[in-house]
Amino acid sequence: MPENILVVGGVALGPKAACRCKRLMPHANITLVDENVYISYGGCGIPYFVSGETQNLDDLRSTPYHTIRDAAFFDTMKGITVRTQTRALAIDRQAKTLLVKDVVSGKEEKLPYDKLVLATGATPRMPKVEGGDLANVLSLTRLEAAQTIRTACEGGKISEAVIVGGGFIGLEAAVALADMWGVKVSVVEMMDQILPGALSHSFGQMAAHDFTSHKVDVYTSEKVLRLEGTNGAVAKVVTDKRELPAQLVIFAAGFIPNGQLARDAGLEVTPFGAVVVDAHMRTTDPDIYAGGDCCSIKNIITGKPGYLPLGSMANRQGRVIGTNLAGGDARFPGYVGTWAVKLFELSFCGVGFTVERARKEGFDAIGVSVEQLDRAHFYPEKSMMSLELVVEKSTRRVLGMQGACVDGAALKARVDAVAAALQCGKPTVEDISNLEVAYAPPFAAAMDVVNVVGNVAENVLCGRFSPVTADAFMELWKNRSDNHVFFIDARPAAAGKAVQKKHPDWHAIPLEEIAARVQEVPRDRPVAIICNTGLRSYDSLLILARNGVTDVVNAMGGMQAVNKMGLTL
Amino acid sequence: MPENILVVGGVALGPKAACRCKRLMPHANITLVDENVYISYGGCGIPYFVSGETQNLDDLRSTPYHTIRDAAFFDTMKGITVRTQTRALAIDRQAKTLLVKDVVSGKEEKLPYDKLVLATGATPRMPKVEGGDLANVLSLTRLEAAQTIRTACEGGKISEAVIVGGGFIGLEAAVALADMWGVKVSVVEMMDQILPGALSHSFGQMAAHDFTSHKVDVYTSEKVLRLEGTNGAVAKVVTDKRELPAQLVIFAAGFIPNGQLARDAGLEVTPFGAVVVDAHMRTTDPDIYAGGDCCSIKNIITGKPGYLPLGSMANRQGRVIGTNLAGGDARFPGYVGTWAVKLFELSFCGVGFTVERARKEGFDAIGVSVEQLDRAHFYPEKSMMSLELVVEKSTRRVLGMQGACVDGAALKARVDAVAAALQCGKPTVEDISNLEVAYAPPFAAAMDVVNVVGNVAENVLCGRFSPVTADAFMELWKNRSDNHVFFIDARPAAAGKAVQKKHPDWHAIPLEEIAARVQEVPRDRPVAIICNTGLRSYDSLLILARNGVTDVVNAMGGMQAVNKMGLTL
Repeated sequence: MPENILVVGGVALGPKAACRCKRLMPHANITLVDENVYISYGGCGIPYFVSGETQNLDDLRSTPYHTIRDAAFFDTMKGITVRTQTRALAIDRQAKTLLVKDVVSGKEEKLPYDKLVLATGATPRMPKVEGGDLANVLSLTRLEAAQTIRTACEGGKISEAVIVGGGFIGLEAAVALADMWGVKVSVVEMMDQILPGALSHSFGQMAAHDFTSHKVDVYTSEKVLRLEGTNGAVAKVVTDKRELPAQLVIFAAGFIPNGQLARDAGLEVTPFGAVVVDAHMRTTDPDIYAGGDCCSIKNIITGKPGYLPLGSMANRQGRVIGTNLAGGDARFPGYVGTWAVKLFELSFCGVGFTVERARKEGFDAIGVSVEQLDRAHFYPEKSMMSLELVVEKSTRRVLGMQGACVDGAALKARVDAVAAALQCGKPTVEDISNLEVAYAPPFAAAMDVVNVVGNVAENVLCGRFSPVTADAFMELWKNRSDNHVFFIDARPAAAGKAVQKKHPDWHAIPLEEIAARVQEVPRDRPVAIICNTGLRSYDSLLILARNGVTDVVNAMGGMQAVNKMGLTL
Repeated sequence: MPENILVVGGVALGPKAACRCKRLMPHANITLVDENVYISYGGCGIPYFVSGETQNLDDLRSTPYHTIRDAAFFDTMKGITVRTQTRALAIDRQAKTLLVKDVVSGKEEKLPYDKLVLATGATPRMPKVEGGDLANVLSLTRLEAAQTIRTACEGGKISEAVIVGGGFIGLEAAVALADMWGVKVSVVEMMDQILPGALSHSFGQMAAHDFTSHKVDVYTSEKVLRLEGTNGAVAKVVTDKRELPAQLVIFAAGFIPNGQLARDAGLEVTPFGAVVVDAHMRTTDPDIYAGGDCCSIKNIITGKPGYLPLGSMANRQGRVIGTNLAGGDARFPGYVGTWAVKLFELSFCGVGFTVERARKEGFDAIGVSVEQLDRAHFYPEKSMMSLELVVEKSTRRVLGMQGACVDGAALKARVDAVAAALQCGKPTVEDISNLEVAYAPPFAAAMDVVNVVGNVAENVLCGRFSPVTADAFMELWKNRSDNHVFFIDARPAAAGKAVQKKHPDWHAIPLEEIAARVQEVPRDRPVAIICNTGLRSYDSLLILARNGVTDVVNAMGGMQAVNKMGLTL
């Protein structure tokens, strides 16, 4: 008798698991239920539909060949029965049935299963604030909301919008609204930086500057208290620091895994509510699989359970589940936490832990950052790339890397290489120094930026120099009347002298002159040195050290990083 | 007493090793000798100077901050003594001296060393053909030759050129001459494809088509017999198949490592002439290091000694040697063989073995290729990417991957991720299926092309379908009157029907219709199926299999690959 396979949830993982299983086991009866109307859509594409870059809503639920993936598509083309607007209410593991309810007719029914797949996803966290139920207060996970926003923008109805949450989706939405529709956007984030957890505080400043220089206001360490409306629609956001007029409010403050169905059935669920699965993506009931945004999976770097809701992970997990449903032995290894986001000028991309997150995880971590061109400096097309490598001091083990670059694909190349290394072992700083990446002048530098960040980390770990982030350097500069730091600009003379003219405390001593002018540097004060990227200042610092000047800090990323953070002298 | 460190060779590795050592050991006496005038230049940039993309020759020997790296630069800025036009003649390992000769004055001298570094590079292979000594017969490794070519182009003196050798440098030179100067270029390659060893024969056809569609003639399996001249300058190239008029001939037929100095000193050298070094880049004499293009290093995939002359490798090895000269314990792990080259429309990039090379190495290898967009299909900017994964059948181990794409950085991202995996372990097809790469719609597809090529390889290895390359499919089509193959086009109806109208043997049976029309497919003839990329044809093939039609081959990469190879129905 053919097996009955039941899949709950029809967005990313559910359809993938169903289709893969059906390909391997053509005679299986596979039914997929989803409580919504739309299924199998690219939720990650919603910001691009809002912006208009993706023209039609249907593009998000089409194959690359413009076939819409609706119930009929799965039935005819894939041999899978799809029941939309059908909510899963309860699992009876004894009887092996799933109680479902037709949300239109209200009719309940028990569906039998041999194997069950939970692909119930996650729910956007909607903070319980007064006014949260006003019209035009939305999250950005459903196509219906996307259409509402786009229609309102096209109708010129939105002149101000507030995004609550400075994570990936919030920032993508902010870019979409500001860049394409000229909406005045404010981002309100509770933490003290945007992209918290994804970027270090320093690199977060680069992201914030990309926003503010494109007229998007960023309010960090700020909390939304309530929303106020006019005629039932939102009109104003009140935070603990200000009032922001807004005809649209998007909540993008993270996700809560939909683990209730599993929990109610007695399956193991984490305290956070995510379904626990093994390497085969099986729950604590061997006949029930789960995957995607409703699940907790292993963080490969710590070896501990973690949570990372991402469409790409769901797709890969879906294939693993599909294989196993058909009697295979596929495993999902866990995640290292890669991500990418395109803002205005800059794209950001990363893997693993930021320095702050690594410390929270108990690692004795440091972050080392560099600025370097992504290609040979003599090649005409190139961009300055910022990379920050996060390493454990005692073991020299790499824990993560994040970056910023105008060329997102070039940045992705460096991050994905480190991500692969993190998936395959426990790379050290030396492995990054030696990492072999594809080279030719239109693609990389002969000593590529990813190798350089490894080299610099190695120099720091060996105590060859004391780094400060560019923003910490600027803090030193701001407080110069108190800290008595002696500031050196090691750039070629013209650049440094221009600053010195305005600020006599800024000492333009180019690398070329430092050996000859070493007597100008006081020995009874700390020294802070900066150049354009950190390269010349390092060479200067070594010359100072040879001359007995050793209380020196070097600004990582130099003026390039200072400028990317929007800091001014 | 400070150590005397002597470095022979001043292009990539030599200066790197010297500077790194000096930074770590400031009091060392470091001398670098080189027989040429120019040192420390980016030899890989020569094609871009020839094309004019890099404006000045000095750009190739400048730091990113426009300081020229000449002898004075190394002396003043780095504390390293440089003696150019000084040839190393012999090493006396007993006395620890190097005999050198001033090539201008002819004066010989013995330089003492505590540690010696051989960075003698490689010499372009100049086939000994009649006329090889005519004017304007050049290789492309020295700045002087680059200037000669550029000046001749600027003067309008070159209307036809022949490149001998279809490897990286030859092809870069061909692009430079044809694209920027409108020179009629012919590439003559002895092997039966261009980029032999780097690309499979099939992907080599994509590269060749990129050339021929940009009016560069490609002659493979063809040998240069002699060159003929007029007034002492080359005027014609005579091959075993034709005569080609040429005012410029560039030999780019590979390199021979300069291992003679080492061999004469009794150091171990491979039969091919490359210096043997250990993981510390030490020769068989512990006081003599060697690295860069003159050395043999370990191929990580086979574990056997190999040879890969690349500027990026030399730079990384230089740092390792510099560290060890200063008493450190740095290791160079070997190479997996990454490369990248930008042609006209397409960039190519790869790592490890091609399917043909893997077989020569004794692996029971297959190549599996796909075509897929590099980003979400609903995102406006995107390119079709071709990837070919090379795997060992019995172990499912990945041996290499090569690709082609308009967006070179996007391609590099996929290749570098697989390259990192190859450096850190022995990845299998399943590791590539599950490889976690940074995802967001402007960067990747939710099921990324690199995962898809892993998935397809897994399907092939499990016997789920029999693949043929797009060119093999077209061979079947060409010979259809003999082989009685039944051809199915699974694309959406319009595309297939347009071909069927011209060729009644071409059966347009879209995926949507195949289940209903399965009776049209004969059971007593082999079937070959194609679609746009290989995706729809795979689904069609599974439906055929369910209906008992099993003698089917599927064209990998579909019509996208056919078109990239310039093949026509």
